[in-house]
Amino acid sequence: MRLFDDLDSGNGYKVRLLLAQLGLRYDWTELDIDTGATRTPEFLKRNLNGRVPTLELDDGTHLAESNAILWYLAESSPFVPSDRLGRAQTLQWMFFEQYSHEPFVATPRYIVKHLPANHARRAELADRLAKGRAALAVMDEHLKARAFFVAERYTIADIALYAYTHVAHEGGHDLEPYSNVRAWVGRVGAQPGHVGIYLRPRASGAEA
Amino acid sequence: MRLFDDLDSGNGYKVRLLLAQLGLRYDWTELDIDTGATRTPEFLKRNLNGRVPTLELDDGTHLAESNAILWYLAESSPFVPSDRLGRAQTLQWMFFEQYSHEPFVATPRYIVKHLPANHARRAELADRLAKGRAALAVMDEHLKARAFFVAERYTIADIALYAYTHVAHEGGHDLEPYSNVRAWVGRVGAQPGHVGIYLRPRASGAEA
Repeated sequence: MRLFDDLDSGNGYKVRLLLAQLGLRYDWTELDIDTGATRTPEFLKRNLNGRVPTLELDDGTHLAESNAILWYLAESSPFVPSDRLGRAQTLQWMFFEQYSHEPFVATPRYIVKHLPANHARRAELADRLAKGRAALAVMDEHLKARAFFVAERYTIADIALYAYTHVAHEGGHDLEPYSNVRAWVGRVGAQPGHVGIYLRPRASGAEA
Repeated sequence: MRLFDDLDSGNGYKVRLLLAQLGLRYDWTELDIDTGATRTPEFLKRNLNGRVPTLELDDGTHLAESNAILWYLAESSPFVPSDRLGRAQTLQWMFFEQYSHEPFVATPRYIVKHLPANHARRAELADRLAKGRAALAVMDEHLKARAFFVAERYTIADIALYAYTHVAHEGGHDLEPYSNVRAWVGRVGAQPGHVGIYLRPRASGAEA
């Protein structure tokens, strides 16, 4: 398998973290989202939507959308519950992550880290951070009596939500009010085989 | 089962359409999103994130996020591919729908239909419609040589994308340039057991 990715992408990190914890080997090709490397005609053949992460399977098929890649890799592993309701609840939190969390926790981080300080998109920050606080409050309430998001054990729902939550401060969020979220961040970081978001995988091959 | 829903919600319609095609009976409680009925303390006990659709299962458990509900209902049915890659590709398009499509195809419809004509959020329309056109172009390209989104048959990926695409004009989109999307909309609408978005299910019980 080959993962097309950007080291700074939390969506890419989800996949890197799961691959590490599954003990799977993969090739890694870094694309710089800031220079349009995911919008070249060549890359659009891999993913029409022009985004990383994109996973190339051994048969040449490409799979996009970080949370769909997590499902593909983890489906029959302990990282996905084995019961029907648990699987649906795992997906519930992964869809929550993409719709109610990522645009308001990840996107502020993108604006702050990747765009010039005088960029017009700075105007979006206040509204996005407010909606991000709402998402963090939902997470904090859910975690009030729970160790993990689903089934009382570490699943890909936790991986999906951890990726941008644990670096939310880089976009201007403050996790201080969310004590349950902070405790959960600690538990996720202590899982066996955990790797950090800025640990660069060994790149291989000539792809770029 | 009881579905908490708003008739005008495309996300709710996804679930109504699948339930009809699966031939499953359910109770239906309508909540008016415009009057805050999904943000009452009572409803937040059902879904911390305060959104419809929310499905109450017979054991009293609540499941949120339209696409997670689709997965729960369809997992072992012909509406989800039986192979691992097909399942992941189904989820890929469902995550595409929630991240790259819904905010730019559904939200303009919400702004146009549900907010006053002089509402400040009208200012969002141009940018959202542009991003919606990008999503429709991705769909149109994918459908160039395909009858359905995954596995050459009708799945919950089609249901998820159809819900807001077929009423995109209500938010100011024009499907005219997307001939493959229009042909696919026709195929989805011709599936056995299809019901329209504005067909009101029989409400039951005293819930409200």
